[in-house]
Amino acid sequence: MKTQQIVLAARPKGMPDADTFRFEDIEIPDLQQGEVLLKGLYYSVDPYMRGRMNDKKSYSAPFEIDKPIFGGVVAEVEDANGTDLEKGDLVTGMLPWSKKIVSAEKKLKKIDASFAPPSYYLSILGMTGLTAYFGLIHIGKPKDGETVVVSGAAGAVGIVVGQIAKIHGCRVIGIAGSDEKIEMLKGKFGFDGGINYKTTPDMKKAIAKACPDGVDIYFDNVGGEVSDAVISNINFHARIPLCGQISLYNDTEIPTGPRVQPTMVTHSVLMQGFIVSKYSDQFPEGMAQLEEWVKEEKLKFTETIIEGFDQLPEAMLSLFSGGNTGKMVVKA
Amino acid sequence: MKTQQIVLAARPKGMPDADTFRFEDIEIPDLQQGEVLLKGLYYSVDPYMRGRMNDKKSYSAPFEIDKPIFGGVVAEVEDANGTDLEKGDLVTGMLPWSKKIVSAEKKLKKIDASFAPPSYYLSILGMTGLTAYFGLIHIGKPKDGETVVVSGAAGAVGIVVGQIAKIHGCRVIGIAGSDEKIEMLKGKFGFDGGINYKTTPDMKKAIAKACPDGVDIYFDNVGGEVSDAVISNINFHARIPLCGQISLYNDTEIPTGPRVQPTMVTHSVLMQGFIVSKYSDQFPEGMAQLEEWVKEEKLKFTETIIEGFDQLPEAMLSLFSGGNTGKMVVKA
Repeated sequence: MKTQQIVLAARPKGMPDADTFRFEDIEIPDLQQGEVLLKGLYYSVDPYMRGRMNDKKSYSAPFEIDKPIFGGVVAEVEDANGTDLEKGDLVTGMLPWSKKIVSAEKKLKKIDASFAPPSYYLSILGMTGLTAYFGLIHIGKPKDGETVVVSGAAGAVGIVVGQIAKIHGCRVIGIAGSDEKIEMLKGKFGFDGGINYKTTPDMKKAIAKACPDGVDIYFDNVGGEVSDAVISNINFHARIPLCGQISLYNDTEIPTGPRVQPTMVTHSVLMQGFIVSKYSDQFPEGMAQLEEWVKEEKLKFTETIIEGFDQLPEAMLSLFSGGNTGKMVVKA
Repeated sequence: MKTQQIVLAARPKGMPDADTFRFEDIEIPDLQQGEVLLKGLYYSVDPYMRGRMNDKKSYSAPFEIDKPIFGGVVAEVEDANGTDLEKGDLVTGMLPWSKKIVSAEKKLKKIDASFAPPSYYLSILGMTGLTAYFGLIHIGKPKDGETVVVSGAAGAVGIVVGQIAKIHGCRVIGIAGSDEKIEMLKGKFGFDGGINYKTTPDMKKAIAKACPDGVDIYFDNVGGEVSDAVISNINFHARIPLCGQISLYNDTEIPTGPRVQPTMVTHSVLMQGFIVSKYSDQFPEGMAQLEEWVKEEKLKFTETIIEGFDQLPEAMLSLFSGGNTGKMVVKA
């Protein structure tokens, strides 16, 4: 029996394009003891995956040329060989971009679809939610009455960060790329304000106006000029969790900009790059808290769901032009 | 009775010059109850004082125009009015650049000159030593076998940082601006290696060669291109205590350079600006440790002593051209 997978055809220089990906038909191997056959239901596309397309040391190993792209997948068990998992079970794991997937049982986590839409396990009840939770709580250390600015605020992580900051009594300003996103942040997600960076000529001034007491925590998903503007409004003893730098991921040269160190010295600022796996020993605690907040409806969420396995490359590219609101997911 | 003081005549644009300072003769006021008359012996000149010449919010308030410059001073009590301090006692405090000084007793700390040269209380047994101690221990968190790079290594803070890192079992590379300084760091102070940034054409390569296992801690006193070169060799989970940015203090525009955030995200790097006063509740512990190391000769020190109260402005400027080895002090 055959299936279709998507491999990395060539490492992109700058923005990925049609030459970056290749669809391949492959033979599905027989199941070995302890393996299951999966049908992919939802595939996660995330900004960090762009970094894995480079042949460069980073926190996750580079994808290999001519090998499938890997990412978060929610899948249904279709067949099993000597496993506790049974036909019909839903699982999640880091899996190849393939319509059908053979995987060892131990690489999978069974999920409970009665509690939330299964795709949520790729986002708010998965790495995205934990990234927001640990980055904000452990690095940002939000205190009642502080001002929090989130860039990429309408993205999968940003939406969760803003809501958790509100739960902690902070004033929250979101930066996003359309008026619709800003309205959604303020309406559905309870942000205190928002700035559309695409239509705001003087971001530094706009942030100063939106944050009359300055910025205590800047949760940074995007980097670049948006961050320059926020940092020029930063308070003494501010904390800057660095979650991502999506505005720079497709740069082919090292980007330049105003140096941040002088401000960090004069204002005693902390800045920390992090990956969520650093907190893996605390995942159960974090996940329990996220589930509780979702149940209590203190934490709401939204997804952009693209239909069709063949849309995966396009969905990936669309992340970099802000094509998603909340989590970008492809439904097979 | 009259004395001479040095006031801030004008806020410098860029490098301070002759117009920045003005010498004035003033009348010494009568002593009030609880006050002492002091004769200044040693005056501290420090890079951070440049920042106080600007009219800009920073961790220490700006100096006022037509008011004396303030800094660390070691002085001898010449007269006292109802104080525990007596004629002949040596004290230290944040005091004006004035030959004779009237001060409230409560603003002064009595020092023990039997234990170390009195000027050491402006440096290794004062704020400089504590800055090195807390910045390295609390932010850098040195671990046995790690590689530590110190910029401004032959400066008052850098010399102490390198030696404390050695005490913690680290490999230490110092960056300084002359071959004599490098030799001194390796010879007298036990650094494992050193790089003269003024004569090294490719600093990135030189650091890679000096640090074959990468850089785990970068204690940054200087900023600018030296820091760019170190950061391009930074390890995963590295820590960067930001103590100073002396290479940029006289810039009139916001300096630009390669953005650090992308590397900080991919390598989970922590960077923290700090001032020593953050740790003031732990000063007794830190001071006791520094004294112990000095007594055991695990911690050595050196000073550049300029003679003459009238040399204070010149000594201050000389900091920015690397005119000091170790602590720069003016002896009245």
